[in-house]
Amino acid sequence: MAIPKKKDFLVEKIRRYLEPGPTVLVSSSWRGRTDIMTMGWHMMMEFSPALVGCVISESNHSFRMIRRSRECVINIPTTALTDIVVKIGNTSGDEIDKFAEFGLTPVEASKVSAPLIGECHANFECRLKDDTLVRKYNFFIFEVVKAHVAPRPKIPRTLHYTGDGIFMTSGRSINRRKMFLPEMLKP
Amino acid sequence: MAIPKKKDFLVEKIRRYLEPGPTVLVSSSWRGRTDIMTMGWHMMMEFSPALVGCVISESNHSFRMIRRSRECVINIPTTALTDIVVKIGNTSGDEIDKFAEFGLTPVEASKVSAPLIGECHANFECRLKDDTLVRKYNFFIFEVVKAHVAPRPKIPRTLHYTGDGIFMTSGRSINRRKMFLPEMLKP
Repeated sequence: MAIPKKKDFLVEKIRRYLEPGPTVLVSSSWRGRTDIMTMGWHMMMEFSPALVGCVISESNHSFRMIRRSRECVINIPTTALTDIVVKIGNTSGDEIDKFAEFGLTPVEASKVSAPLIGECHANFECRLKDDTLVRKYNFFIFEVVKAHVAPRPKIPRTLHYTGDGIFMTSGRSINRRKMFLPEMLKP
Repeated sequence: MAIPKKKDFLVEKIRRYLEPGPTVLVSSSWRGRTDIMTMGWHMMMEFSPALVGCVISESNHSFRMIRRSRECVINIPTTALTDIVVKIGNTSGDEIDKFAEFGLTPVEASKVSAPLIGECHANFECRLKDDTLVRKYNFFIFEVVKAHVAPRPKIPRTLHYTGDGIFMTSGRSINRRKMFLPEMLKP
């Protein structure tokens, strides 16, 4: 599978990729082992520092790895990875090495020990910022400390899970830039 | 503008509409006045009770109304409402009555005092469940206590904000139901 070339991307601008609500892959590492999970429950919480809230079920193998390492990478797959996204959700990192099993390429991150997934369109390196609500809701707040994004395609076709085995995919864009008040366009 | 007929919808299944990440309209009421705001930063947190996390900026007029009333309605607009979604984001409820200004129809809710927006595809009545992180991150956790959804169109064309005045809209669906493990399909 192709590994898109990526460039550094301003972390203050990652809402571009996360706010539309794509299904993402979360990679983690702990004591020499790695894992990948699919995640649909996440949101932007702040531009700068770039904060992202996520629910990671405690039943997931990644939960323990992320809680211990206090790091992860949020990777954005496109529709080219649809089947792998489903297979990653179907399996547990307790039993298999998901990078090897699904032919994905671990790429060294800059600021965290968890690997980037080379085949994804974008990779956001995250450090755990706040675990206040982990016990009650499995809710983690991460700070994105480094972002890598493929400049092409400019508008990636992303997956958006609706439950029941069905993904919506991103469609055409609507530009209403001229209607927005200038102060509403930042950042 | 058309007001779609809606049916009661199981609150345990609202991830169908929220997990794909649409831009939503939040309606609120306090002491006889109403307000509407646009919101892009939200996520599912639990199926049952149906919990939704949201960031509502304290600079928003709705912030105070929702904090005081401890209620709101999350409404899902389709692309038919694109211009109104932008205009709602450009204006403040301090200065105008957004229902009147934008020709939207307030419909009485079942369980909260905030009005539903008739023209939207779906309406989720919410009660504030947890305000632990409101002070620190403007982060509210709501429980959806009643859901209303238009059965048609089955797949609404929703708006997904990417910043910079541009919305992505929902495109075609991909069905991978047969690939999912049965236990991954609930609910």
